[in-house]
Amino acid sequence: MEKDRDVRAFDFDRCGHFMHRLMTELFPICRSITGDGVRETLRIIQDHIPLNIFEVPSGTKAFDWTVPKEWNIRDAFVLDPEGRKIIDFNESNLHVLGYSAPVAKSVTLTELQKHLHSLEEQPDAIPWVTSVYEERWGFCLAHNKRVQLKEGVYQVYIDSELKEGSLTYGEVIIPGRSNKEIFISTYVCHPSMANNELSGPVVATMLAKWLASEPRRFTYRIIFIPETIGSIVYLSRNLQSLKRNTIAGFNLTCVGDERAYSYLPSRNGSTLADRVALNVLKNKHPDFRQFSFLERGSDERQYCSPGVDLPVVSLMRTKYREFPEYHTSLDNLDFVTPAGLQGSFALHKDCIELLERNRVYKTHCLGEPQLGKRGLYPTISTKESHRRVVDMLNFIAYADGTNDLIDISNTIRIPASQLYPIVDKLLAADLLQEHFVE
Amino acid sequence: MEKDRDVRAFDFDRCGHFMHRLMTELFPICRSITGDGVRETLRIIQDHIPLNIFEVPSGTKAFDWTVPKEWNIRDAFVLDPEGRKIIDFNESNLHVLGYSAPVAKSVTLTELQKHLHSLEEQPDAIPWVTSVYEERWGFCLAHNKRVQLKEGVYQVYIDSELKEGSLTYGEVIIPGRSNKEIFISTYVCHPSMANNELSGPVVATMLAKWLASEPRRFTYRIIFIPETIGSIVYLSRNLQSLKRNTIAGFNLTCVGDERAYSYLPSRNGSTLADRVALNVLKNKHPDFRQFSFLERGSDERQYCSPGVDLPVVSLMRTKYREFPEYHTSLDNLDFVTPAGLQGSFALHKDCIELLERNRVYKTHCLGEPQLGKRGLYPTISTKESHRRVVDMLNFIAYADGTNDLIDISNTIRIPASQLYPIVDKLLAADLLQEHFVE
Amino acid sequence: MEKDRDVRAFDFDRCGHFMHRLMTELFPICRSITGDGVRETLRIIQDHIPLNIFEVPSGTKAFDWTVPKEWNIRDAFVLDPEGRKIIDFNESNLHVLGYSAPVAKSVTLTELQKHLHSLEEQPDAIPWVTSVYEERWGFCLAHNKRVQLKEGVYQVYIDSELKEGSLTYGEVIIPGRSNKEIFISTYVCHPSMANNELSGPVVATMLAKWLASEPRRFTYRIIFIPETIGSIVYLSRNLQSLKRNTIAGFNLTCVGDERAYSYLPSRNGSTLADRVALNVLKNKHPDFRQFSFLERGSDERQYCSPGVDLPVVSLMRTKYREFPEYHTSLDNLDFVTPAGLQGSFALHKDCIELLERNRVYKTHCLGEPQLGKRGLYPTISTKESHRRVVDMLNFIAYADGTNDLIDISNTIRIPASQLYPIVDKLLAADLLQEHFVE
Repeated sequence: MEKDRDVRAFDFDRCGHFMHRLMTELFPICRSITGDGVRETLRIIQDHIPLNIFEVPSGTKAFDWTVPKEWNIRDAFVLDPEGRKIIDFNESNLHVLGYSAPVAKSVTLTELQKHLHSLEEQPDAIPWVTSVYEERWGFCLAHNKRVQLKEGVYQVYIDSELKEGSLTYGEVIIPGRSNKEIFISTYVCHPSMANNELSGPVVATMLAKWLASEPRRFTYRIIFIPETIGSIVYLSRNLQSLKRNTIAGFNLTCVGDERAYSYLPSRNGSTLADRVALNVLKNKHPDFRQFSFLERGSDERQYCSPGVDLPVVSLMRTKYREFPEYHTSLDNLDFVTPAGLQGSFALHKDCIELLERNRVYKTHCLGEPQLGKRGLYPTISTKESHRRVVDMLNFIAYADGTNDLIDISNTIRIPASQLYPIVDKLLAADLLQEHFVE
Repeated sequence: MEKDRDVRAFDFDRCGHFMHRLMTELFPICRSITGDGVRETLRIIQDHIPLNIFEVPSGTKAFDWTVPKEWNIRDAFVLDPEGRKIIDFNESNLHVLGYSAPVAKSVTLTELQKHLHSLEEQPDAIPWVTSVYEERWGFCLAHNKRVQLKEGVYQVYIDSELKEGSLTYGEVIIPGRSNKEIFISTYVCHPSMANNELSGPVVATMLAKWLASEPRRFTYRIIFIPETIGSIVYLSRNLQSLKRNTIAGFNLTCVGDERAYSYLPSRNGSTLADRVALNVLKNKHPDFRQFSFLERGSDERQYCSPGVDLPVVSLMRTKYREFPEYHTSLDNLDFVTPAGLQGSFALHKDCIELLERNRVYKTHCLGEPQLGKRGLYPTISTKESHRRVVDMLNFIAYADGTNDLIDISNTIRIPASQLYPIVDKLLAADLLQEHFVE
Repeated sequence: MEKDRDVRAFDFDRCGHFMHRLMTELFPICRSITGDGVRETLRIIQDHIPLNIFEVPSGTKAFDWTVPKEWNIRDAFVLDPEGRKIIDFNESNLHVLGYSAPVAKSVTLTELQKHLHSLEEQPDAIPWVTSVYEERWGFCLAHNKRVQLKEGVYQVYIDSELKEGSLTYGEVIIPGRSNKEIFISTYVCHPSMANNELSGPVVATMLAKWLASEPRRFTYRIIFIPETIGSIVYLSRNLQSLKRNTIAGFNLTCVGDERAYSYLPSRNGSTLADRVALNVLKNKHPDFRQFSFLERGSDERQYCSPGVDLPVVSLMRTKYREFPEYHTSLDNLDFVTPAGLQGSFALHKDCIELLERNRVYKTHCLGEPQLGKRGLYPTISTKESHRRVVDMLNFIAYADGTNDLIDISNTIRIPASQLYPIVDKLLAADLLQEHFVE
């Protein structure tokens, strides 16, 4: 696909197909928490955004954890008693237990069964299973296929390698006028699954393109990491600056299907990230589902942990664990759609635009201003024009130096995006002072 | 009607007819935001209370506004092609567009129609329309009458005058033991309409009579102004002392019909004025309607604006814009009744009495006091007497030096007025200290 | 019954029968707010716990009150015109009006009726009536018996005595490692009634035995007093140390029947006593009834009064006044059961155990800890083992140095008792710091 970092002519209102094509390109790669699959994924993303890639050696300490050995796999299959290749890594990289040890031997069906994983209740799906911290070998397959296996001797073969190596992650920093930062994190450690998790990386890539397309107030830090160990490693290297600078953050995961949006709050629950997310969701997507922090399950587990306490939320489509395709081969390129990706991109864009616009406002004027003499009173009186005057006067009534744009939007029950032109008019009429929030 | 400021023999429990007669006297006067109608109105009110009248010259700056030219009108009519007077200012001063420019000419029906205002959905009502800040001429009439107009040449005549003059308002200050003030504001700028707005001025007049009838704890400041420009002018001349002294305020409007009460909170929402209003309404008028500050529409727009922030609420009968008679000739002397006025007077009187009685209380006694030895335990035990003892002990339980009378009433769920005799008994028994709220 | 203070072999999970037998022993004694009945009751309790007994002379001032004269009674009866003993103090000590003056004379039925008390709506019950602060004589009887009385001359005889004496109360202090105290109060001033009030004293006795059975973190102060005047006297002598040391308290009353639990909050409503009570009730007894402090009626009236403000709640079975047997002879040894007493004992034990365990926790670890390397991750994965890992990670997520165990239990919706083993494991793994709450 096109490999151009130039975004000047890009249409960010119709970039769903672009994201889906990028996902299609990344889909076949066998990713794990370490190894060449991650590197190849980041290299492809680098074609679109100026990603810096970091390697952290196996054995490196990070808080309570240690970077594990690096895992790579070249091939894997099972031959049935007739010598037919009935399980083949080249058909789906989900067929191999993640972090599987190498193996090459003949086994009886009884022995083989101990190393097979399938889902009785989803008999056509290949499950995704992984075993990072205990060394074993195994295969995953559709339950329908498993029940047809006959007695006999099978050949199992996994050409994998577990060795001292490194953990790989990517980072792009887009400087703004302020050194206060908005933080975006997504993960690149899952093999061929689309929603969880290639949707996060492709939406994050598109957000990076959009953010770089014009000057911004805030600095943006976007990272592509392996889940859990990756966020812990990243935090261990950047904690102080993240704590000092981050005003809001978003953990991007499961943003590709077309169902209603989901909101998982920060542990604190009322950070700027929560406030902006709730304002946008309530106004634009009132059918969103609200989860509790107790239902967390991605890197907010680290970002919101005691002592870290970053203002990070997750805005998803259907949340991990809540869709039947989750962690199986059914989470594929049909389940995720261009429209689903475009919607999630737009939701995060709306949040970021509100963060960029958000300030504490204070009117200069004692009593209501005389709008007429300033040309702010409509000359033709319609219901619509009357409503706009009411919105403007309501905005002014709460622009008292204590409320920011989000507060005022919540109080006067007007979507923040409808307040932007009001703010512009009032600033032009010199009726408003703005105080920066940061 | 009687023009005696002496209130010694006045029955404030039955003053509805008095207020209605005063309203009847004021009704025919053609009021506008400036001019002789306001002056005549204030002169009549002066017969009942010692009103000081102020004149503020046209062109005076007040915050973002300027006092407009003064408008007066002597006569106005329309003659039909047969020379019959089909619209006559002397029949109803609503017939003339407020602040209308003078005119005297012949016009075709087509031309005339451009200057007519009527209500298709209320075909018998003359609407009230005004145009202060743009110079034009016009007539208002019942839609039923308008549709009968025939082709031909009409004579239009308006003998009005727009000139350098002044804005007129009245103020009465009733000194109390404290220089802390309770503020009452109402407006005298509407032509012949009863509820909106002569009900406010007549109830304010009666409150002033009642307040002057005995010594008070607080100082009372009652003003009769034109709406919007009047409150802005008044604030611009008195802001610092109002902010320093005002502990609670009431904007009086639409207080004359007999429907359930309405409460429009201050912008802050929990000022002393809000607390006293809610306590009285919840206990005495639990069917009241609560509005949001977003539904405001009278001078609380100015009194509660950022930087002004006075603790002002509106306690109304049916709120402006909520009754069909609003801003038409149907808002007349039948719509407003003596009982409606009396009820609103009593509601404000209840609030003021609670403000006068309100203090923070603290019991001297550790543990419950022994009521028996102090004669506070009833000698005859009935359900009623038991309830009174329970109320007294509950009052004492919360008289801990942090709660005022309103807090205690809210907490123990007894109307404040039922706590007055309890407070008196406990003070007499030396079981209570009172701390002044101001 | 056994009179052994040794508790080493005591089974506190099955002590309901023990409490019921102790209650049976105490039941026949004629208690009043002063006098030999109280002394005999305390002497019997002293057989089980090391009670210190105090005598406070009549006439002693205590806050607003004075210790009354001491009342004792030896015998009382009424003979009917035929000389039959139709009311006999020896059958039930409720038959005599509490604090009755002595009398010995002949009266007509008409005269006698003025001194009789019965309940028309509960015709088989003898009501309990008392008159401490006014001198009179009287008898109480079943209404069914009263209506059968015939005209004639009756002999009334009360051999009682009102004299300078003293008010008696008992106190046991069980020292812990901290001088911060948990306060338990119950009352011993009611004649032969079981739930209200012998259930409180027998449960308090059992709590004292249990508390003394092993070393404790907090010091425990348990008092057995007459209601109202007793708590006022006790407060007047111990107020400063109670206010300085008490972190939580329980007023024990009506804890003997088998109906759902009741909770009467402190006046403050959110003291540590309220927090612990609500946590235990919501988790273990979600059918409990919540009352308002306005419905109080026992010694929390004094303990929570302004200026005293101790953190005291009442955890009851059916609350006083809420059961039909209340204050009659129907409140007997059948109404109160071993199971009812055992349940109330266990409820208070649960609260105290939570108070003893309660601390503010803070995790050492930045990011989630790696549970696997510490043996905290289950080797066999079941739903139950997964739930335990989730609970542990949720505990850590809120162990941020601001929440105590009760807060964390409330937030993560796990009963505190299920968090004890988690805390133990995390402390052993050196993943947690504990801060003492006191």
